[in-house]
Amino acid sequence: MTAATTEKLGTVLDGIRSAVGADRVATDQATRIAYARDLWPLLTLALKEGKVEELPEAVVRPTSEDEVVRIVDLAHRAKVPVVPYGGGSGVCGGAVPVAGGISLDVKRMDRIVAIDEGRLLADVEAGIVGQTLEEQLNARGFTLGHFPSSIYCSTLGGFVAAKSAGQFSSKYGKIEDMVAGVRAVTPGLGVVETGAYVPSGRGPDWTPAFIGSEGTLGVVTRALLRVHRLPEAMRFRGFSFPGMDAAVLAIRKLVQRGMRPSVLRVYDPFDTWMAMRRPNEKPEAKADPTGAAFARRLGLAEREGDDADSYGSEPVGGLGDRLKDVFDRLPNSRSIRDALNARLRPENLPLGTLLRQPRLANAATSLLGSRCLAVVGFEGTQVEVDAAIEELLQIWKVEKGVDLGADPGERWFRTRYHVSFKLPQALERGAWVDTIEVATFWDRLVPLYDEVKRAVADKAVVMAHLSHAYHEGCSIYFTVAGPAGSASEARDTYQRVWDAALDATLRIGGTVTHHHGVGLLKRDWAAREIGPARHLYDALKDALDPHGILNPGKLLPPRA
Amino acid sequence: MTAATTEKLGTVLDGIRSAVGADRVATDQATRIAYARDLWPLLTLALKEGKVEELPEAVVRPTSEDEVVRIVDLAHRAKVPVVPYGGGSGVCGGAVPVAGGISLDVKRMDRIVAIDEGRLLADVEAGIVGQTLEEQLNARGFTLGHFPSSIYCSTLGGFVAAKSAGQFSSKYGKIEDMVAGVRAVTPGLGVVETGAYVPSGRGPDWTPAFIGSEGTLGVVTRALLRVHRLPEAMRFRGFSFPGMDAAVLAIRKLVQRGMRPSVLRVYDPFDTWMAMRRPNEKPEAKADPTGAAFARRLGLAEREGDDADSYGSEPVGGLGDRLKDVFDRLPNSRSIRDALNARLRPENLPLGTLLRQPRLANAATSLLGSRCLAVVGFEGTQVEVDAAIEELLQIWKVEKGVDLGADPGERWFRTRYHVSFKLPQALERGAWVDTIEVATFWDRLVPLYDEVKRAVADKAVVMAHLSHAYHEGCSIYFTVAGPAGSASEARDTYQRVWDAALDATLRIGGTVTHHHGVGLLKRDWAAREIGPARHLYDALKDALDPHGILNPGKLLPPRA
Repeated sequence: MTAATTEKLGTVLDGIRSAVGADRVATDQATRIAYARDLWPLLTLALKEGKVEELPEAVVRPTSEDEVVRIVDLAHRAKVPVVPYGGGSGVCGGAVPVAGGISLDVKRMDRIVAIDEGRLLADVEAGIVGQTLEEQLNARGFTLGHFPSSIYCSTLGGFVAAKSAGQFSSKYGKIEDMVAGVRAVTPGLGVVETGAYVPSGRGPDWTPAFIGSEGTLGVVTRALLRVHRLPEAMRFRGFSFPGMDAAVLAIRKLVQRGMRPSVLRVYDPFDTWMAMRRPNEKPEAKADPTGAAFARRLGLAEREGDDADSYGSEPVGGLGDRLKDVFDRLPNSRSIRDALNARLRPENLPLGTLLRQPRLANAATSLLGSRCLAVVGFEGTQVEVDAAIEELLQIWKVEKGVDLGADPGERWFRTRYHVSFKLPQALERGAWVDTIEVATFWDRLVPLYDEVKRAVADKAVVMAHLSHAYHEGCSIYFTVAGPAGSASEARDTYQRVWDAALDATLRIGGTVTHHHGVGLLKRDWAAREIGPARHLYDALKDALDPHGILNPGKLLPPRA
Repeated sequence: MTAATTEKLGTVLDGIRSAVGADRVATDQATRIAYARDLWPLLTLALKEGKVEELPEAVVRPTSEDEVVRIVDLAHRAKVPVVPYGGGSGVCGGAVPVAGGISLDVKRMDRIVAIDEGRLLADVEAGIVGQTLEEQLNARGFTLGHFPSSIYCSTLGGFVAAKSAGQFSSKYGKIEDMVAGVRAVTPGLGVVETGAYVPSGRGPDWTPAFIGSEGTLGVVTRALLRVHRLPEAMRFRGFSFPGMDAAVLAIRKLVQRGMRPSVLRVYDPFDTWMAMRRPNEKPEAKADPTGAAFARRLGLAEREGDDADSYGSEPVGGLGDRLKDVFDRLPNSRSIRDALNARLRPENLPLGTLLRQPRLANAATSLLGSRCLAVVGFEGTQVEVDAAIEELLQIWKVEKGVDLGADPGERWFRTRYHVSFKLPQALERGAWVDTIEVATFWDRLVPLYDEVKRAVADKAVVMAHLSHAYHEGCSIYFTVAGPAGSASEARDTYQRVWDAALDATLRIGGTVTHHHGVGLLKRDWAAREIGPARHLYDALKDALDPHGILNPGKLLPPRA
């Protein structure tokens, strides 16, 4: 920073201190480093090298919308960047202060302002953590129905910023379906209210312009959320389909005929094989060394139990042995063979070595066959869910679905948060792991799945599942793992995997982001995707944030 | 127009003639008069006086989006107003060329460009008439599920412009739920594509900015519509509730528990009394002199059949006799008494005279008691609709609903378009009639109903029904009738009724427009309603239409 900038910032911070109290403004190095990143894996890899790219000059923690107004006003007049910050659980770099300035932590604004039991609307502050919000709603007999895997640490503001979607989205909708209106503090127009806050229901609707804008159009301080009475009953059912095409057709027909299951997931053969293995559901599960869990996820550990044999007509399992057969016939795979001969005990597993031959690992997974697991869940009254299951059984019999009973779904439900936030431990085991969530129309879905897999197959081990279905299309959630022997090697592979995956997505005509947002990671592809439509965004941006102080560099690349 | 303006316009029209062909440009007086108005009753009343306020200088009929681009570009450079024109069935003056210029009739752009049976999306040109669209979809086995009472003559472009809602909205949604994306020609940014046209599903969504913008942000040329397979079965059920409060609570609980009936209507006691009378369902019904139909709607004709006695515990009907009893005790009601003594044969009915005593007529309707009719319809497979009816019977038994069987709903379905477009005939009978559709949150719904009724009770005869329910609220559809003895008297009453109704709506905190749009009629109230949120609109307006040529004066009053 130049001396002038430093002085300017100092003046702003003095103003903020007198506005919100000195104890709400932190400039110490530890705090600045803590707010320099979110959970974008690329930043974690950099951190492993001791690198922290950009630091905010200060972290401010307002406790009310009025304080946010004063902070934004001071920053606006001095043209100091403001980066809204919630749980810091984003995975695309959306909270990175690339231009320095102020990280605005809204987590102290975490109240449910009101719940209107007639309108079934909850007026909630943006800083509340998802789990806290759901627990407080449950205590009153309500649910939001929003269950992202980050719910333990992500905030409502983050949900709105990244256009979040949760595990029950096919019944309760994505966040854009739940939000009836937002309040946002903008540099250009002050506090802006949209949707049901106004409450003009029927003109042009501006709420959808803020949902997914990643804090670049305004600091979202509150949202009006559509809540629901807690359901009386929940029932799951699992099915096996002969292949991805059949499974995709089955869920498309379900959604397009207007059925609204709370849970609707389809796993590709590799992910199916993982899902059908009995995971460790004991409390200690979370304490398991992730290396072991990760090895299991990659199917390299010995099978536990035989429940997988209950899965459809094609017996699965024994990937370790099959890999051995494959690799024994291959040159230059001594280390793999040694690993396999070591009976694949996680503690002995040279995971990085295996991940350095992703083409082989991916090829080996083809030995698992083509069958796909589908998990469906319904919520409602007992009568409703029983009727829905009956209808489902009728419909999917026609689609060649093999009924697997309640177990696969109930197991998924019990363990659905186990795999989150394990990157650091994975790194210790010599691997990086990330997820790539894209989406497209039904008819392009399998081509998109094939194209992305093909594009990354020689760079990372890849598996996928479908978990957010719409009238016209669906999203695909890829899990990719690559070698992290050295951090620079990891960052190189990581970037090449993403480049290949997102290029492939645009080739098929899909969208490069579904519910993780854009941040820094995808902004170039997002720009290619929307093309001239960015002018609509720019028009609103110029009015709401004329100096461009709000979360600079995110969502789209800077205008030429 | 000044000579300069005339010359400028002439140049533009010459350019348009060479761009789209001279036969697509009309400047004759008859055509200009035909396009000077829509179905806003105030303009019909003016017409009765031989008054036509504003004429377009020309009417242009493009056949393709490319032609629209060239027309808009020429008009933009010359700053000549362009008013998009579809069916001309708007009822708020939205298509009136208040600043002259060009009326752009898009009805020659009426193709279904494509139906994607996998995505269940239809790509449709904006000029297609609703009924034609539905018939063409039905022929392919699909439905849009959009049934506004104007469907015979309104266009897709009009649906998008006015944020239309149809009779089956509780299952298929309002037009904003059906539209997955729009294409619009804008002066500032050329052709703009939104939503599924892009197809970037997950950033800020701009489609909702165009839906309800009444042609002021762009000329919508195409929309991607979510269509559905034609349902296998349809079932109706009617219920009677002890009053509006009970009926409102009943439909709220239905919607908020996630049930999605195709039809959901609640009638106030007066409208209930009309609905329970057996209407003339013979084909000649449409040919009936509206005076008679209108008299029946006002409950002044003798009852036909006794089906009304099947209606709940409170026998209704005989309003004519009851009115006579009331009026016999009143001074200054000789003409009414005469009318009643004349056994209310429509041809003898001095309707205007009665309407000149609206307070009495409204007071008399209170003799009908408080019971309200609710009509519910379900669509789906036979199994689904049977299950839904069973569930409905269980739920509404708790809510004190009296089951009336299938008849009320089936009768509504058969006759649901009979009352539309009868204003001219009503005028011949000495009355004007209009509808006022407002909306608010559930808890304000009955207060809004009472407040609007109270506000207009001394100016017009009023009845209402509820027909579009949401998670958080519902709309109210008032039918008002006033005397049209002289056109100037009619226009005076008409304006006072609207002023009172919309002021009352804002007092309660409702929205002054639900699905008829804003146009000229409601723009002042719309501005009061959205307040500072108009800056968001203005920002986009400046980028899309920098010279303000698109449908000037509509949706919001001109900026100060």
